[in-house]
Amino acid sequence: MFFASDNAGPVHPKVMEALAEANEGFAPGYGADAAMDRVRDRLRDLFEAPEAAVHLVTTGTAANSLALASLTAPYETVFCSPVAHIHEDECSAPEFFSGGAKLTLVPGGDKMTPEALRSAIEREGNRGVHGPQRGPVSLTQATERGSVYDLAELRALSAVARDFGLKTHMDGARFTNALVTLGCTPAEMTWESGIDALSFGGTKNGLMGVEAVIFFDPARSWEFELRRKRGAHLLSKHRYLSAQMEAYLADDLWLEMATRANANCARLAEGLRGTEAELLNDPQANIIFAALPRRVHERLLEAGAMYYLQDGPLEGRDGEEMLGCRLVCDWSISDALIDQFIELAKG
Amino acid sequence: MFFASDNAGPVHPKVMEALAEANEGFAPGYGADAAMDRVRDRLRDLFEAPEAAVHLVTTGTAANSLALASLTAPYETVFCSPVAHIHEDECSAPEFFSGGAKLTLVPGGDKMTPEALRSAIEREGNRGVHGPQRGPVSLTQATERGSVYDLAELRALSAVARDFGLKTHMDGARFTNALVTLGCTPAEMTWESGIDALSFGGTKNGLMGVEAVIFFDPARSWEFELRRKRGAHLLSKHRYLSAQMEAYLADDLWLEMATRANANCARLAEGLRGTEAELLNDPQANIIFAALPRRVHERLLEAGAMYYLQDGPLEGRDGEEMLGCRLVCDWSISDALIDQFIELAKG
Amino acid sequence: MFFASDNAGPVHPKVMEALAEANEGFAPGYGADAAMDRVRDRLRDLFEAPEAAVHLVTTGTAANSLALASLTAPYETVFCSPVAHIHEDECSAPEFFSGGAKLTLVPGGDKMTPEALRSAIEREGNRGVHGPQRGPVSLTQATERGSVYDLAELRALSAVARDFGLKTHMDGARFTNALVTLGCTPAEMTWESGIDALSFGGTKNGLMGVEAVIFFDPARSWEFELRRKRGAHLLSKHRYLSAQMEAYLADDLWLEMATRANANCARLAEGLRGTEAELLNDPQANIIFAALPRRVHERLLEAGAMYYLQDGPLEGRDGEEMLGCRLVCDWSISDALIDQFIELAKG
Amino acid sequence: MFFASDNAGPVHPKVMEALAEANEGFAPGYGADAAMDRVRDRLRDLFEAPEAAVHLVTTGTAANSLALASLTAPYETVFCSPVAHIHEDECSAPEFFSGGAKLTLVPGGDKMTPEALRSAIEREGNRGVHGPQRGPVSLTQATERGSVYDLAELRALSAVARDFGLKTHMDGARFTNALVTLGCTPAEMTWESGIDALSFGGTKNGLMGVEAVIFFDPARSWEFELRRKRGAHLLSKHRYLSAQMEAYLADDLWLEMATRANANCARLAEGLRGTEAELLNDPQANIIFAALPRRVHERLLEAGAMYYLQDGPLEGRDGEEMLGCRLVCDWSISDALIDQFIELAKG
Repeated sequence: MFFASDNAGPVHPKVMEALAEANEGFAPGYGADAAMDRVRDRLRDLFEAPEAAVHLVTTGTAANSLALASLTAPYETVFCSPVAHIHEDECSAPEFFSGGAKLTLVPGGDKMTPEALRSAIEREGNRGVHGPQRGPVSLTQATERGSVYDLAELRALSAVARDFGLKTHMDGARFTNALVTLGCTPAEMTWESGIDALSFGGTKNGLMGVEAVIFFDPARSWEFELRRKRGAHLLSKHRYLSAQMEAYLADDLWLEMATRANANCARLAEGLRGTEAELLNDPQANIIFAALPRRVHERLLEAGAMYYLQDGPLEGRDGEEMLGCRLVCDWSISDALIDQFIELAKG
Repeated sequence: MFFASDNAGPVHPKVMEALAEANEGFAPGYGADAAMDRVRDRLRDLFEAPEAAVHLVTTGTAANSLALASLTAPYETVFCSPVAHIHEDECSAPEFFSGGAKLTLVPGGDKMTPEALRSAIEREGNRGVHGPQRGPVSLTQATERGSVYDLAELRALSAVARDFGLKTHMDGARFTNALVTLGCTPAEMTWESGIDALSFGGTKNGLMGVEAVIFFDPARSWEFELRRKRGAHLLSKHRYLSAQMEAYLADDLWLEMATRANANCARLAEGLRGTEAELLNDPQANIIFAALPRRVHERLLEAGAMYYLQDGPLEGRDGEEMLGCRLVCDWSISDALIDQFIELAKG
Repeated sequence: MFFASDNAGPVHPKVMEALAEANEGFAPGYGADAAMDRVRDRLRDLFEAPEAAVHLVTTGTAANSLALASLTAPYETVFCSPVAHIHEDECSAPEFFSGGAKLTLVPGGDKMTPEALRSAIEREGNRGVHGPQRGPVSLTQATERGSVYDLAELRALSAVARDFGLKTHMDGARFTNALVTLGCTPAEMTWESGIDALSFGGTKNGLMGVEAVIFFDPARSWEFELRRKRGAHLLSKHRYLSAQMEAYLADDLWLEMATRANANCARLAEGLRGTEAELLNDPQANIIFAALPRRVHERLLEAGAMYYLQDGPLEGRDGEEMLGCRLVCDWSISDALIDQFIELAKG
Repeated sequence: MFFASDNAGPVHPKVMEALAEANEGFAPGYGADAAMDRVRDRLRDLFEAPEAAVHLVTTGTAANSLALASLTAPYETVFCSPVAHIHEDECSAPEFFSGGAKLTLVPGGDKMTPEALRSAIEREGNRGVHGPQRGPVSLTQATERGSVYDLAELRALSAVARDFGLKTHMDGARFTNALVTLGCTPAEMTWESGIDALSFGGTKNGLMGVEAVIFFDPARSWEFELRRKRGAHLLSKHRYLSAQMEAYLADDLWLEMATRANANCARLAEGLRGTEAELLNDPQANIIFAALPRRVHERLLEAGAMYYLQDGPLEGRDGEEMLGCRLVCDWSISDALIDQFIELAKG
């Protein structure tokens, strides 16, 4: 009953097979492998972006930090949500890779609103040489709290950025979970909605450790390559990254896994509605938040369930103390384990 | 006939099996997997260093840069060979990770001498606040040119460093190739010879992409963890790094592969002696340099051999123009391919 | 009628005289001048801190950034007010000098409360290796809004920092303005109240461009010197910094100028009470904020008054639209000019 | 008898007067003072560069580091002499301000040759993403060893840079000493000779602490301003920098002081020819190197002469051990003191 994260489950068997198949003889290193050419072509096709720059790295933090470093001068600031992964969970990697840029937290929840973004940008840019300069906007899709921006929201946000001449980056560690929720095309969710650079996640969706960075303006490509190498993120045996990504995109495996993860989460949410749990959000991707009485948490944890508790008690329906928790479903968790969790939550 | 590098061959089948075995169910991420505990214990045993800090990363550049960043203040300088990987082949990653430290090139060839090191340190440290301060010494074992420091040489070099209160780092991307050449223990080639921090390579010796960083003083561990995370080098699905390293160290697989690589290189060198090639160094590990007439290079390259030519022509025995080349053998190259190369070199 | 800042007025004549006196013959450079020895001794005496490290730089941003860089690892975060100079007015210099550390804004106004600080520290330090680590607390005395922390407040704040093992830095660009308000000793307002490092301002209080950085723990001194040199803030003709600081501290000139600046501000505030202005804060040092009808602002600005307007209209007593403004008094502004301003504000 | 450096003498009285005159009333800060407009115009006139960007800072290290940071990406390398101030005497400030760029030392003496430069550039740029990328060339005029590049040499060097698409920076800490030696115009010695950016020194030539940074391509201006502020090098009371520079350029004071300094050095050199000293270079600017018997050094130092000894003994004419020394003359040293030094050197 592992609901702590979607980065702890197994790699999809088809991906493991692809790795085994790639393990034959010699291959040019450092991204010059033939599989990388195929991956680049495939992603350009999928995103309907025949010129896009495509690069692979091993972690989401590398994808975000390197993408942002290519878009952000050291004296600029990145606009992001207060709960963005780049702010909360990367030990200041964006600050490091950019050479000391700032992050400006746009007030509000995990989903940014165009109004809050506009006001934050306006405020940040009125101190001339004294304050940091305005840099890119970074959005997370799906968000850290499991929400999904719809296309209108994405367009409204990137339009605000564009009004100020700023670029928009998308942290897509859970890109595919959002994509299948919206049922749109990758192009619609990115460059057609004003996204300039994308961290296209694979690790949280069944890969061993691969993320793609996609710049829809290919002029960014060479600088990115230099920053990747300098950041020690250019793998010599790059073919094993390419092989993972190739398998991911073949036969819609990426969509299949995200669809499954979202369905798992929906099943969990649906099941919890009939228990002592109070759902704190509607499942939009593969993350939900729920409040449960402390004694139910104890029962779950004793039974081996793994998930993160939120800070601080909440008040429940009958005045009983509740504790919030985050529940994340990956593609691999079985219906049986989900149902076992639901049963235990029934009390 | 791939002799361009030892980072382009296949992963050893036993390592692939270990990855497949590790691909079961959920495992705590970010280095908290049980396999990492076993890897740490195993490396501590092997190095007879029960307190050593042990961490895994995916590239040699990450291992070197993060290790050096933990040892070097931004206003210090690292002493290294003019042909060190950290100087020539990492796109200034050490400068990046250290926050702008310098590298001071110790005059000489790829093997540093204690005299040259002492003189470089003395010269660098006499300008008070105006010059960079003395930082660690970084040695490469085996060197970029395929040489191996013997234990007396290592001790003499680290003794010079210690005379000035400086730490010594070893870039061991080809650690095991050197170890089997010397026939000594890991402890003898490291902390017993004055080495404080080690980049323990795996990728060039049959792994998919794993290097260990070992600090013999465990006080460095937490800072390293922070720098690793901030450098985006902490993998969520860390178990797949642990699994590789565990398989590597099991049943002496690491020693077996390095022994094979060195033997492959010795076979190549021996064979070339009877050809038009002139050997430019004696094989000590798995790299040799040879000079061949241009027409022989053409024949080899046409036949599909892959290796790097050196810059600039050399003069051969009979006045014919020769071109130098670097030939690297990994564990996997077959006797047949080596012999085919030798045959072609016969002219 | 210059009320825009206290960094635009003239240098005190006694300081100019000291510069002229210092301009004789040759003097050792880079801080080795004899006057610097006297300055160090004098500041140690004044602060009753016989071991303190004392260094001079030319700007407040340099003092703050270099002091904080000495206290903050790149993977740490500095706790400060949302309106702190280090956050709003230094173009991310603290991020630059620290190698990419973060600033964590403690919610609230310009004066930090111990509760808000404790809660911010608690929140920042619970994500292990994933989030930035807790670094120093930086307080501004007097604040950017013209408030003064009393000794009990300073002690309560530094006690919170100490509870977490953190250091406390004081941005004292207007140190002396606060000191004369409190009527306490420099020691009481600093190390006796738990301050570890101080930016001791001179430029806003009648000098040409000199700030001292004082570490009460002298172990910080050598690292600071290296960071200062590397930051290009070590002046060769250092004697002209020493001469300014020496004149500043002689015959209580520093206290005299701050007392005058505060008195000027009190006179202005008192005068404005009888006008159309609404005072938005009580004068505690040399800065007040006031709201005035737009037409009064127009009259003032036409008459040549210089000061900064605040963003956004306020509602006045009779529903007339008011605009806030910041009024800063330096030591040099004459009673006549202050009175002229008051007259104009009467409408 | 102070010959240790040209940065330890007094400020020219006319500059002190200008400071006193500037000390009147209020003036807009941060470079918005009216005197700065005049300085900018004056320098543009002098350099026949009506569009040039002109900025002032307080130290030569700041001028060099900020200028180079504007020209150099973090993954690039700066080509310079092994004895360049930026390499030897700035505690790695260029590395810091550029975010970790490298310095590539062009083999040879203090004056770079076009051949050595070309070969260094060619060698540095052939490792693709693995090595640092080629960045600007930095020349020192006059050099650290007192030599002066003639115009043909400057043009040949900048032509090499331009062949590779690289920019050329001139460290002109002793710009005027070289200019009066060559007897050319500022334009001839800079942009007409292919210089893109100039550190125009004042401090070593009679100012208190002011250097101008001049970009002949004004597009660099805004980025420079941001980097200057972020580097804590934007002075609030900027008028005192402007005043110094204005006085410097008025009535040819800058040329007068450099002419005097060079003449002082020539007098010293001429005088020493009739003594036990052996001149090690011909005076071209205001620095000479000479070898003297140890006992003569002792006599000089006892008599209060101040200058730097070189490392290591030299052999003199008659086999007596000689020690080299560097002798620098500023504008202010009197004929009497020079002659006294010469007398003492006679033995």
